[in-house]
Amino acid sequence: MAQRHLDPPTDPTAGPAPTGDALAGYLRAQATEFLRSLRQHRETGAVSGSEDSVDAARALRRSARRISGTLHTFRPLLDTDWSEAMRPELAWLSGTLAREHAYAARLERLLLALHRLSGSAAFPTPSAGPAPRAQTSPDRGNLTVGAAKAGALLDRQLTLARTRAHSAALQALGSSRFHAVADSVAVLASEVPLTPAAATADPRPFAAAADERLCDAVSALPLVTAGHPYNAEALIHGLSPDTAPHPQDAPWHQVRLLLRLHRYAREALYGEEDTALPERGRELGGARVDVRLRSAGQALNRHRDAAEAAAAASSAARTPRIAPATAYALGVLHADQRHEVEAARFAFQQSWQKEAVGTP
Amino acid sequence: MAQRHLDPPTDPTAGPAPTGDALAGYLRAQATEFLRSLRQHRETGAVSGSEDSVDAARALRRSARRISGTLHTFRPLLDTDWSEAMRPELAWLSGTLAREHAYAARLERLLLALHRLSGSAAFPTPSAGPAPRAQTSPDRGNLTVGAAKAGALLDRQLTLARTRAHSAALQALGSSRFHAVADSVAVLASEVPLTPAAATADPRPFAAAADERLCDAVSALPLVTAGHPYNAEALIHGLSPDTAPHPQDAPWHQVRLLLRLHRYAREALYGEEDTALPERGRELGGARVDVRLRSAGQALNRHRDAAEAAAAASSAARTPRIAPATAYALGVLHADQRHEVEAARFAFQQSWQKEAVGTP
Repeated sequence: MAQRHLDPPTDPTAGPAPTGDALAGYLRAQATEFLRSLRQHRETGAVSGSEDSVDAARALRRSARRISGTLHTFRPLLDTDWSEAMRPELAWLSGTLAREHAYAARLERLLLALHRLSGSAAFPTPSAGPAPRAQTSPDRGNLTVGAAKAGALLDRQLTLARTRAHSAALQALGSSRFHAVADSVAVLASEVPLTPAAATADPRPFAAAADERLCDAVSALPLVTAGHPYNAEALIHGLSPDTAPHPQDAPWHQVRLLLRLHRYAREALYGEEDTALPERGRELGGARVDVRLRSAGQALNRHRDAAEAAAAASSAARTPRIAPATAYALGVLHADQRHEVEAARFAFQQSWQKEAVGTP
Repeated sequence: MAQRHLDPPTDPTAGPAPTGDALAGYLRAQATEFLRSLRQHRETGAVSGSEDSVDAARALRRSARRISGTLHTFRPLLDTDWSEAMRPELAWLSGTLAREHAYAARLERLLLALHRLSGSAAFPTPSAGPAPRAQTSPDRGNLTVGAAKAGALLDRQLTLARTRAHSAALQALGSSRFHAVADSVAVLASEVPLTPAAATADPRPFAAAADERLCDAVSALPLVTAGHPYNAEALIHGLSPDTAPHPQDAPWHQVRLLLRLHRYAREALYGEEDTALPERGRELGGARVDVRLRSAGQALNRHRDAAEAAAAASSAARTPRIAPATAYALGVLHADQRHEVEAARFAFQQSWQKEAVGTP
């Protein structure tokens, strides 16, 4: 079912083959974007949750991930010591910056789910499409006692975690460790440390190797089961004594990361995707594959978000001295999010299969 | 999507058109079967759960349902006063006899689900196919504390309900009300009270009207939503303050009953289906439709069973002074069974659509 290679039939290159220069240009652009976002983040101040500050942090993470991924995929074309030293630092940075946003998004997801489960018409169901970003926390006026208490408990726990993550991010941005990362990125913005042979080397085999790692990982997924609706797999072990995260989720999370690396490698060689201008010099094949890979990637993001939300609900249920009604609501919520996990796997399987069928 | 008529293209009648005599023969046969089962039930004694006694009670219910359904569908061909008086009595009887079995099956379903949710490999998942009838209650050795306590609570509550239902059934079988029913059935076994015109009348329009009622009810179901996997509809209101049963389930339960009436009407006119001998004088078309209707009916049985199991879990969670871990496990279990409800709707939609597509 899974194809072994993504690139050959869908390679959007109509012009000359990309070289190490394309790669250097991409890294420079991402480094410049990183520095711009950093400046913006400093200017907007560190007010937690201010829209500009959130945007700047997101842009910082975005370029940090792209730099790190590109260094990884094309590492034989780059100064090894330098890029090997830089990658864990970028991972630390984007991980630290991501946490605050993740807790906020998790809380929003769980409160929306509680409203849906309480039959509140005011909030859309996640499965009816992507949930709109709530400007404020949904009110809990029409929840049952158990659901309201569960919502309040999650609110307390995740808001505390978010506040801590915010402090940790501020502390990280003021640390000498961070300044060393920023200095390295500044170097990258002016002079990419390519190996002597890289400028004229063909980088495509490295991108192809990344594709292969992705396809290998996908072919190890239980896609036949995932493609069978209501297979009830995601909730197996839902009451097992092991705490979250579920071991069954790990290969899906891994595919999510490999799919991201695949996407960044394509961006590096063929230019960044620009959904606003789909006609800009891209072939139909490339655009079609982008749409499919994007929906596969979105399914895996949803998979990760739902898995983490389920774990948060189950963790909240272990809070001492909660009322049975609260625990019951958290159990329903946990199972609901594990079904979202299963639904996301089904959605991934559907996207991926379309792709495999679409490219002979 | 739903077709308006089931019969015309799939009518398995290759011989002469059925008459009121066919109907009388069917009713006599069912009445005879009722009396035979009743004798068997008395002979096996009233030991709760003995295999023969369970089989006899099932056979009694089976013929009571068929007699009642046939009286309903073909009531203009039968003595009105007599059949109108008999139907509620048959419904009372089969309802009373069904309860004991239903509680036992519900407990078994819930304990199997708890095992599946605890990651126990010893028990199959319901979605992997029909669960084998467990000879004994599954042990709870490898459940978590919460799941084990939830299992023990459900065991206590449903076993008590089952015991009460058993006593009620025994009491019913000894009552003068029951003896009056048995007397009426004995009359039916020798002389079916047809109207004077019925012997030569065409009973098919009454069967067609039953089909139409079925198709009308199906077309009122939210089949488009149900056919979209993971629509998350069944768990909406999962935490609502209204107690079970869910109002959204009612139209599906209604279709289940109408599908049963449709099946009995076919049996009455064209002979009982015999899955052991599919070649016995049945056309391919008839056999194919039987398989589809059977799978649609099985989906709706599963829908009913899962809905009632979900309600039992949620009702157990309202037991005073239970531990939060117990309540949490019951919440997970409730949501799991509501997802079974959703899965059953999906399965029904798939069977029904196949039928509509298969018969042009």
